[in-house]
Amino acid sequence: MAILERNGTGGVVHLQMNAPERLNALSDAMLAALQTTLDEIAQDGSARVVVLSGAGKAFCAGHDLREMTAARQAEDGGAAAFKDLFDRCSGVMARIQSMPQPVIAQVHGIATAAGCQLVATCDMAVAADDTRFGVNGVNIGLFCSTPMVALTRNIPRKQAFEMLTTGNFISAARAETLGLINRAVPPETLAQETAALAAQVAGKLGVAVKIGKRAFYDQLDLTTAAAYAHTGAVMVQNMLQSDTEEGIAAFLEKRDPKWTQ
Amino acid sequence: MAILERNGTGGVVHLQMNAPERLNALSDAMLAALQTTLDEIAQDGSARVVVLSGAGKAFCAGHDLREMTAARQAEDGGAAAFKDLFDRCSGVMARIQSMPQPVIAQVHGIATAAGCQLVATCDMAVAADDTRFGVNGVNIGLFCSTPMVALTRNIPRKQAFEMLTTGNFISAARAETLGLINRAVPPETLAQETAALAAQVAGKLGVAVKIGKRAFYDQLDLTTAAAYAHTGAVMVQNMLQSDTEEGIAAFLEKRDPKWTQ
Amino acid sequence: MAILERNGTGGVVHLQMNAPERLNALSDAMLAALQTTLDEIAQDGSARVVVLSGAGKAFCAGHDLREMTAARQAEDGGAAAFKDLFDRCSGVMARIQSMPQPVIAQVHGIATAAGCQLVATCDMAVAADDTRFGVNGVNIGLFCSTPMVALTRNIPRKQAFEMLTTGNFISAARAETLGLINRAVPPETLAQETAALAAQVAGKLGVAVKIGKRAFYDQLDLTTAAAYAHTGAVMVQNMLQSDTEEGIAAFLEKRDPKWTQ
Repeated sequence: MAILERNGTGGVVHLQMNAPERLNALSDAMLAALQTTLDEIAQDGSARVVVLSGAGKAFCAGHDLREMTAARQAEDGGAAAFKDLFDRCSGVMARIQSMPQPVIAQVHGIATAAGCQLVATCDMAVAADDTRFGVNGVNIGLFCSTPMVALTRNIPRKQAFEMLTTGNFISAARAETLGLINRAVPPETLAQETAALAAQVAGKLGVAVKIGKRAFYDQLDLTTAAAYAHTGAVMVQNMLQSDTEEGIAAFLEKRDPKWTQ
Repeated sequence: MAILERNGTGGVVHLQMNAPERLNALSDAMLAALQTTLDEIAQDGSARVVVLSGAGKAFCAGHDLREMTAARQAEDGGAAAFKDLFDRCSGVMARIQSMPQPVIAQVHGIATAAGCQLVATCDMAVAADDTRFGVNGVNIGLFCSTPMVALTRNIPRKQAFEMLTTGNFISAARAETLGLINRAVPPETLAQETAALAAQVAGKLGVAVKIGKRAFYDQLDLTTAAAYAHTGAVMVQNMLQSDTEEGIAAFLEKRDPKWTQ
Repeated sequence: MAILERNGTGGVVHLQMNAPERLNALSDAMLAALQTTLDEIAQDGSARVVVLSGAGKAFCAGHDLREMTAARQAEDGGAAAFKDLFDRCSGVMARIQSMPQPVIAQVHGIATAAGCQLVATCDMAVAADDTRFGVNGVNIGLFCSTPMVALTRNIPRKQAFEMLTTGNFISAARAETLGLINRAVPPETLAQETAALAAQVAGKLGVAVKIGKRAFYDQLDLTTAAAYAHTGAVMVQNMLQSDTEEGIAAFLEKRDPKWTQ
């Protein structure tokens, strides 16, 4: 079994992190597999949506602390290795948002530290209602500083601060209320509900979703005026797609569109 | 009947989009009427608050797809016309936030695509509880990239992404929970509830509201430190208004203020 | 009795604003006491968490309007004095976020105008469930422009605009829903619940909390990419702390850490 299993049909790619004995920790091997696979999917025109899940009893429990501890043996105490690790991890997170296909986290068990960051980073997330979420590195003296970049861009400030400094878990219901996930569902319907959401998005015009996802993140980091200037140009680009012309024509003629993509 | 009806008394201007047969689409004529009228109101010292509503069964269903399709006949396939259209539309949105008077959307029926953007852009919004909101351009292959600028500045990120990529509608109750509107009310009290909110704001000192609204949007696009530097200067300007001096004096003397504005 | 009472044990500093006859207004004396005391605490390695409360029937009712009115006697109508006042007030707010220790507001009664800003500015807030919150300067002709910097970084945009332009109070339950406070509790358990939260945070590794709090605010004002670059470096710095090494080792060995700090 590979550390990252890839399956899927009908444009929906299913990626399952598969190191259950380590609670799918973001080890060097896991990060490498994620980066390589996401890069491949990004180039794959037949892939329309990605669902990311974890094998075993947890979605993901964050970094691999044994590997990190081993890196301390270097002359610099691990400084260069740690920098490299966080760079690679942030690279995977950036890849999730920069790839053209929407990525949906299918979450169960626990999602902690960088595992919670992974949930926050995915474009959407569906979770089993008994999932617990935490950015609890503070409990072992390692504040979840990189996870908080994603977390504070999903949930309100004081609630993020509390999670980060208390290390407390929150429930899936609370995660839904705060905006960390799209919804909590019964564990027995998790796969089905996530698949339904993925199928719905996969059924849209791919080029429109691709254009839109890219613009989504680009505009979030801009001032409102700059965001409008940017997205106005994006709308023009979208309008000039032949499939969009067909989509609008079909709507006006009250028929189904015949899309090429 | 004009495409944009203007009425009002007591400082509250009521603007009603009046193209019910097109679900008040943001056609060239509607955008022009909105821009011209909002520009006039911005210069009108007697206007204190604006309420924006739609005639017929919808608040606003977004852009006028027939006009947009017609523009494809140009040699450039419509590129220049589309750019111009999105510029004009973004101009109206910017005008709503740059004008001195608060603008309250009074929403019913549906508010979709650029119509949902209009709700998100208004300073406040009250909606009938059976209103449905959507940024559903993706269904016809045109991702709602400009509407998402306003949407993502109102509601959490994952919930915005879901609306944009699924095209699903949300209810008024959900819109209230997410922050897209201030509140949902029974349809039969919509006009009355909106009028009460408008009257309350219209009863405040106009110059304070004007100074404050401008600072509200200016500071949102700044870093926290820059926002404090900016609003500190704004507070000084506000303090130096004679009506503010009177307002504070009246409060300290436990009497009603006698304001000139 | 000093205008700002300092007490505390076990790393938790309790600061109580003590001008109940003025509803703990942010007078010149109160601002000076806050600035001086927070500066001292920031340098005090034994202080791990700060709890800020108010004596009497209110947490804080904002600026001292009598002092502000007196400043109008100057030749410039008070312009220089007002600028200085808002600078000093913003300085206290910035200090709360720049000091290494988390600051928890323990709120009761009312928190209005700059008093509401103080709640919004503290890293966390626990409130009695009968507390009322408002940014109601608009009622006396002085829009709460500086408080809105903090408010709009805690709660959604339309809800902030409504509070600012109507001057309406919101309940503690509503403040919790919107994100202005972490939670509302019965008045009789307010001190106890706040103390429990403070004790929990005080029990974490101090250097990790210090590093994390600083990074929390630094990264919020950055683009996502810049935020990751910054926090990646912060994580390396955190990893190189000897107490963090011990914390991780203890976790892997399933024992309690022996921290020096």
